[in-house]
Amino acid sequence: MDYYSKQINRLVSELASLPGIGAKSAQRLAFHILNMPTENVEQLSVAILEARNHVCYCKECFTLTDDEICPICANQERDHDTIMVVENSRDLAAYEKTGKYTGVYHVLHGAISPMLGIGPGDIRLKELLQRLQKDAAEVIIATNSSLEGETTAMYISKLIKPTGIKVTRIASGVPVGGDLEYIDEVTLLRALEGRRVL
Amino acid sequence: MDYYSKQINRLVSELASLPGIGAKSAQRLAFHILNMPTENVEQLSVAILEARNHVCYCKECFTLTDDEICPICANQERDHDTIMVVENSRDLAAYEKTGKYTGVYHVLHGAISPMLGIGPGDIRLKELLQRLQKDAAEVIIATNSSLEGETTAMYISKLIKPTGIKVTRIASGVPVGGDLEYIDEVTLLRALEGRRVL
Repeated sequence: MDYYSKQINRLVSELASLPGIGAKSAQRLAFHILNMPTENVEQLSVAILEARNHVCYCKECFTLTDDEICPICANQERDHDTIMVVENSRDLAAYEKTGKYTGVYHVLHGAISPMLGIGPGDIRLKELLQRLQKDAAEVIIATNSSLEGETTAMYISKLIKPTGIKVTRIASGVPVGGDLEYIDEVTLLRALEGRRVL
Repeated sequence: MDYYSKQINRLVSELASLPGIGAKSAQRLAFHILNMPTENVEQLSVAILEARNHVCYCKECFTLTDDEICPICANQERDHDTIMVVENSRDLAAYEKTGKYTGVYHVLHGAISPMLGIGPGDIRLKELLQRLQKDAAEVIIATNSSLEGETTAMYISKLIKPTGIKVTRIASGVPVGGDLEYIDEVTLLRALEGRRVL
């Protein structure tokens, strides 16, 4: 790549190192940035650096935040006795977008995966158990519906059940709007197992 | 979006303002950046700012570069009498990747588009004519094969023909590996018109 000059090449290769951005997109983004007003470029550059420099884990739920306590844990109007366990901050955001969940969260930052060598000690499980020593009414396990997510859910439920705290798992089944014809068999069986009386 | 904290929200919205990056990708990128080593984040941030601050137009061919003269125009081994006219620096890079073109370029930074109100005065046409006052043997018009690109090609050829310099246009036809069945009629007709004796 010596058809651009040095600084442009460097920008293209930095952008191309980000996930989901290939060589073509990196070029397109680079030239977009080169044509942006300087002040917008400064804003972008500063936002990247500042976010990285200020980010830390919420002391309560371990989501990524730039305060000591994240906005959700700091909100006294939320139900602090209901804790939803999620794999990462993006999953937290996905449930927040529904606008209907009023409890708090616990972010594990991963899931148990013997394949990848990630054990229970590598995710924020110890911190969850510590939280549960204070009063908690229900733990909702909302890890992904993947092999790792299910393993983690099983593991957590076995850990918590002896404490007498209610442990639930979000439902697995046919997505709303989903056409049965195109849904895999495992999901169809899950949906059947999870059927409810109307 | 108040489920992330301030700095993270700011990063997400800055990233989402880039072309081709939607809300989901912006979140994914933001969390990737938050998990990157600090020194890599600094490199990214600096690359963005430095590239924007140092970028300028090559005095010869008007491509984006950070030198006074771009590496291609500065290369004395290239044929400076053959000038390929392209719409933007990415198109220049596309031809450079072939590795077979040994001439130089002229970057218009746009194409004539009455629809968008872009006239001949809004692209680097005057600069092309000035370059041609020095000796030039051939001008290869490699604007896109779109309505705007074709309009621009016609306009340029009419401007240059009276000077006696040879003006050519890159061929339009069926792309290599293309299946005739899936190619639009206009392209098929172009390919027919441009047929050659074997």
